[in-house]
Amino acid sequence: MSVTWNRHHILSLADFTPDEYDTVLQTANSFREVLSRRTKKVPTLQGQVVANLFFESSTRTRSSFELAAKRLSADTLNFAPSTSSLSKGETILDTAKTYLAMGTDIMVIRHREAGVPQAIANEMDRLGVKVGVLNAGDGQHEHPSQALLDLFTITTLLDPEHPHLALLKDKKIAIVGDILHSRVARSNLWSLTASGAEVHLAGPPTLLPQLFADYVGGEERGVSGEGRGTQTIFSPHTPYPTPHTPHPRKLFLHWSLEPALRDADFVMTLRLQKERMTGHLLPSLREYHQQFGITRDRLKLCKPDVKVLHPGPVNRGVEISSDLMDDPRCSLISQQVTSGVAVRMALLYLMGSSKL
Amino acid sequence: MSVTWNRHHILSLADFTPDEYDTVLQTANSFREVLSRRTKKVPTLQGQVVANLFFESSTRTRSSFELAAKRLSADTLNFAPSTSSLSKGETILDTAKTYLAMGTDIMVIRHREAGVPQAIANEMDRLGVKVGVLNAGDGQHEHPSQALLDLFTITTLLDPEHPHLALLKDKKIAIVGDILHSRVARSNLWSLTASGAEVHLAGPPTLLPQLFADYVGGEERGVSGEGRGTQTIFSPHTPYPTPHTPHPRKLFLHWSLEPALRDADFVMTLRLQKERMTGHLLPSLREYHQQFGITRDRLKLCKPDVKVLHPGPVNRGVEISSDLMDDPRCSLISQQVTSGVAVRMALLYLMGSSKL
Amino acid sequence: MSVTWNRHHILSLADFTPDEYDTVLQTANSFREVLSRRTKKVPTLQGQVVANLFFESSTRTRSSFELAAKRLSADTLNFAPSTSSLSKGETILDTAKTYLAMGTDIMVIRHREAGVPQAIANEMDRLGVKVGVLNAGDGQHEHPSQALLDLFTITTLLDPEHPHLALLKDKKIAIVGDILHSRVARSNLWSLTASGAEVHLAGPPTLLPQLFADYVGGEERGVSGEGRGTQTIFSPHTPYPTPHTPHPRKLFLHWSLEPALRDADFVMTLRLQKERMTGHLLPSLREYHQQFGITRDRLKLCKPDVKVLHPGPVNRGVEISSDLMDDPRCSLISQQVTSGVAVRMALLYLMGSSKL
Repeated sequence: MSVTWNRHHILSLADFTPDEYDTVLQTANSFREVLSRRTKKVPTLQGQVVANLFFESSTRTRSSFELAAKRLSADTLNFAPSTSSLSKGETILDTAKTYLAMGTDIMVIRHREAGVPQAIANEMDRLGVKVGVLNAGDGQHEHPSQALLDLFTITTLLDPEHPHLALLKDKKIAIVGDILHSRVARSNLWSLTASGAEVHLAGPPTLLPQLFADYVGGEERGVSGEGRGTQTIFSPHTPYPTPHTPHPRKLFLHWSLEPALRDADFVMTLRLQKERMTGHLLPSLREYHQQFGITRDRLKLCKPDVKVLHPGPVNRGVEISSDLMDDPRCSLISQQVTSGVAVRMALLYLMGSSKL
Repeated sequence: MSVTWNRHHILSLADFTPDEYDTVLQTANSFREVLSRRTKKVPTLQGQVVANLFFESSTRTRSSFELAAKRLSADTLNFAPSTSSLSKGETILDTAKTYLAMGTDIMVIRHREAGVPQAIANEMDRLGVKVGVLNAGDGQHEHPSQALLDLFTITTLLDPEHPHLALLKDKKIAIVGDILHSRVARSNLWSLTASGAEVHLAGPPTLLPQLFADYVGGEERGVSGEGRGTQTIFSPHTPYPTPHTPHPRKLFLHWSLEPALRDADFVMTLRLQKERMTGHLLPSLREYHQQFGITRDRLKLCKPDVKVLHPGPVNRGVEISSDLMDDPRCSLISQQVTSGVAVRMALLYLMGSSKL
Repeated sequence: MSVTWNRHHILSLADFTPDEYDTVLQTANSFREVLSRRTKKVPTLQGQVVANLFFESSTRTRSSFELAAKRLSADTLNFAPSTSSLSKGETILDTAKTYLAMGTDIMVIRHREAGVPQAIANEMDRLGVKVGVLNAGDGQHEHPSQALLDLFTITTLLDPEHPHLALLKDKKIAIVGDILHSRVARSNLWSLTASGAEVHLAGPPTLLPQLFADYVGGEERGVSGEGRGTQTIFSPHTPYPTPHTPHPRKLFLHWSLEPALRDADFVMTLRLQKERMTGHLLPSLREYHQQFGITRDRLKLCKPDVKVLHPGPVNRGVEISSDLMDDPRCSLISQQVTSGVAVRMALLYLMGSSKL
């Protein structure tokens, strides 16, 4: 495997180039082959240390990174916030520098505050050290490895031999739910719009980004229903830069589900944080499910072979009906988890090799 | 090592055959040899993933499985309930399927509810995947690896070169304490009665199984003292199936300690859950110790070379007197822990090889 | 690497010989070379088990030991107190014996009570087993690996090729802060005075050891200020044995900072436990910093090339000013963490080879 990779840290997909997406996809695909063997290990990162600094705990994502690192033969260190020096008053940067000084090669960082991985990466660069920082989810900002595994899941479905970004061109992808608070959605917006896909966001107005609302014409505010409330977000006014994309980003906003689903090739549902309800952003889970829950019936609006994704963990019967989630003909949820290990192996591998 | 093993999951000992017991014992004995070397590892499960899904936490048992897996060169993942997706509303089956999708080969599962490992195994079978499920303790149901390590501890004592089930034929084994709530006792009942041993249960009536009480003649209810209250449990009325045993299972119930201990070859004490007292099932720890605690004096009723077992952790001075616990001439408690690693290596090995 | 090492356990530095210090330093230096390679592993402890029994939790120290063990290719087990059998009433010795019975070769033990590692080591010796016990911090007693990494950090600075104890002869080393409650200080007192360095302790009288106060002449009690309150501790009355030192231990006590800093070659600041304030031993963090905080200005009293150490985690702006901590020209804090891995590899290696 001979690839070019010049990105030291993976913090955001905002400035990922099509070449970078394709390199990740192709590298992950070669690791997918490794994972299908009986002995699923390669010696790539032997003797290197991957530290999982999960200031916000997450068994699922931490296990995925840990397994990816172990299958590359790296040694792993897990940082558990409850038993950490943080309770002793140490700053986050000092914790990161401690792991640096121990000999960590790659830091995988999750934190409930947006920007923490970036701040740690900046500090590593300032110190002139070769440690790579990977954002495993920061506040409501980004979760790049999740968006990349979503991309890998979709593109390998479209071309198992040669997954690449351009396969999504002109596909219609709906993202449904709590877009406002979702770092998963935010990263997916970058990758999916970069591909040339049409991305349609649907959710209750209270759970759609303010940022976008500002670009919805005033007279449209508060409307819902088909047609109205449907906006092209990446307009000339768009606050988003569109570097590296060979075509304009196509992003649409809907305050009801139906226009997003119509003729969609893929539907991504987002996890609903139940604590949003206490903030009066949602009436009830039942009402949410009635308006935005994905059911077999509603999927009839989509393309016949539509596939559904969810980053997990799923609230069954809320974001998606239980029978649909378990139906392997339309649910890609298990494949997403499997893709996660391959994509994270690819990211660790690329970051590790960028050090050479 | 060439063995035949067709059992995909290890969930219960209820239908274990004598051949299966003997295969486990012989396999564990060969790993015991590995563990006596300076380099205690074999490459058997290299590249495979053993996930310890301990929904109910247990450092002791989890460490034993983790070490067994590492000595087979498997990669291990630990699932910690407090930091898990469960607190985010994910179902147990969905958690298991997530670990499946990550590439787990064997799941070791502990849960406070009986039947959870079985439910997960059923789901894996329904999905048609090759993942093995090992029950590491489910509610008050079963704890097969504990009973198998008890069996290995006893049979290697009787024949270090060739431990096998039939060595226990006609031995007298007393199990003392809180039988009612003990998954350890429940698994041991299957293995020990299958061996042809005479198994004698002794405990306060409040801590003996209702199931058995139903098979005690009505006129005997409430009696205690020697002779009376002693019942053959596996009668023609027995609710237990006795498949695969070449002889009737011999199980006796006592509401006092003495008849269980008389001429016993082995005494298994069970851990007393202190929370039983708040449920008014026990008067006090002191009184329990007076009635059912194992002491040097009481062991005089047993065979001269009687050995005592306890699954741990021990409440010193409650289930067993402190001096007895530390006496290597009669306590097998340390050997049980050592056996645990060898037996769990054997179980993981057999489950792993059944996949071929 | 051919070394002689006869110490089975590493519990205290009180009776370390100069030869032992030098063996640790030279062994650590050879591992420092390993750690500078791309592949930072050696197969020394392959197949052996290092159990980190951290009854008192510490992510930093536990990660350092875990990484040291992994780089020696050992398998590691981590014991987490919150999920442990201790909550089920098991004694500490029984927990240790459980890990022994599982096949642990080296136990790394931290506990909030002084003497626990020693008690476990005694029990292992009584049982006649070959397990080594390493004290990773016990109450306010000792933390030998921290003192050894401090020693390694200083001596490799003085002679990177050949770090050895005698390099510190006649150097002046100030230890500042809460000496009374510091196991780090206590271990450093042994190593630094053994080297022939002049060791000067400075802190508020409430945070200096009673033991020393007893050896301050009565008329001096309560005095502070330069000159007065400065005492030679290791006098003919000293309660400390001085075995193995080729020269008298030189230890001085100061109730103010200045005399300790004057012409110092090294300044070790100690972590201030904030909970001391609730015990009315300290007026406020701000006042502490004014009196005993290390700042660039105060360092002008020291030798021009003075270096500052801190065992971490640091309360920035309390024990040391933030800018000083981040200044690589005078702060050795990062090197201490790096040294920690090399020194712990050396200790595990030496303990492991002493078993042969």
